[in-house]
Amino acid sequence: MNIVHGIQGASHAGRHGRRKAATRAALIQAGQQLIAEGRTDVSIATITELADVGFGSFYNHFKTKDQLFEAAFAEAMESFGHGLGRLVEDVDDMARAVSIGFRVIIRVARAKPGFASLVTRSGSAALQFDGALRRTSLHCIGRGIDSGRFSMPGPETAFAAIGGSLLGVVTYLLGDPMSDTDELVDSLAAGVLRMLGLPDEEARSIAHEDLPEGVPEEYR
Amino acid sequence: MNIVHGIQGASHAGRHGRRKAATRAALIQAGQQLIAEGRTDVSIATITELADVGFGSFYNHFKTKDQLFEAAFAEAMESFGHGLGRLVEDVDDMARAVSIGFRVIIRVARAKPGFASLVTRSGSAALQFDGALRRTSLHCIGRGIDSGRFSMPGPETAFAAIGGSLLGVVTYLLGDPMSDTDELVDSLAAGVLRMLGLPDEEARSIAHEDLPEGVPEEYR
Repeated sequence: MNIVHGIQGASHAGRHGRRKAATRAALIQAGQQLIAEGRTDVSIATITELADVGFGSFYNHFKTKDQLFEAAFAEAMESFGHGLGRLVEDVDDMARAVSIGFRVIIRVARAKPGFASLVTRSGSAALQFDGALRRTSLHCIGRGIDSGRFSMPGPETAFAAIGGSLLGVVTYLLGDPMSDTDELVDSLAAGVLRMLGLPDEEARSIAHEDLPEGVPEEYR
Repeated sequence: MNIVHGIQGASHAGRHGRRKAATRAALIQAGQQLIAEGRTDVSIATITELADVGFGSFYNHFKTKDQLFEAAFAEAMESFGHGLGRLVEDVDDMARAVSIGFRVIIRVARAKPGFASLVTRSGSAALQFDGALRRTSLHCIGRGIDSGRFSMPGPETAFAAIGGSLLGVVTYLLGDPMSDTDELVDSLAAGVLRMLGLPDEEARSIAHEDLPEGVPEEYR
């Protein structure tokens, strides 16, 4: 499974529809690249050049640059969120679900620094983004609190604390890339599980379990 | 003690020097206000109008808007960091120092939402900012790790995880202000102490201690 898959074109009937969808996908991809590089102050001409589409076709899809960048961010977050959701949907223990999410997100961020910068540059917007990642996280944390496995004031604040922590660690790793961070990331995941209320020994044990089958080899 | 005090003008001799310092302070303050409001795309004329200084005087202090905004951000972070440093300098237990820092920062953020947005809008830049806050935090976390009180991979990553968590919680509280968040914040501080390796009961007890004398009444 590719959890950072490409943007899927909308389903349009006919050749014209397919071409239109391809143009939109190219613009979205260019937008994601520019956000990742911190170059959102470019001209629309630069965007269409990067996307290798005609200048005028931009306006068939977006009214403004900001609209494109918003869509580009939203689609990247959403496709990533769905991938992670599928990864933990069969996990019964919410501590394991959180641990897997934390460890996989940081591994993906290390493997795809461009995508990771897209998220860390957006700062708090990533935490507030109301999509699949947030919904899945709130669901898992909420179930953990309800069952008494987690002792946190509520799912929203726990999500803010854990999600913020994750952003902080990804920001740090982007600025200081190391060759081997797996052990570091797993230790931090244990810290997150302790924060949620698990005893140290159990937290360490869960944070060092093998990642599930669904995680692609490159992120293991 | 005022831990979010105003910007101190540089010490210049004579009336001209004092006026120049006052102009710079007014520009810096205007810059901080605009960053907090997310309005960094304004003209220099708007900045000098807000600062109530002559248009031309801007260029006596800064070459570009970006230079002003950078200085405004840096001075706010620095003055806040020094205030917090003084607050924990006599605290011997590093778990208590971290707890006080976490609880006071969120209380200040709640009392000064403009200042808080200045930090959360900057996103990861706040964590990377190499100033007093970062130095004090790394010092405290490092001492805690060396003494065996904290079990985290290293001060830098622990700072990234805790600082990110703090930013996440502040972002959440800015978007959803509640009348009484003290209990919530103290619970989250307990979570941070657990993350650092303290057992649950001790973490809760320390996170609910009275804040030190030096904390102004408005942040208690």
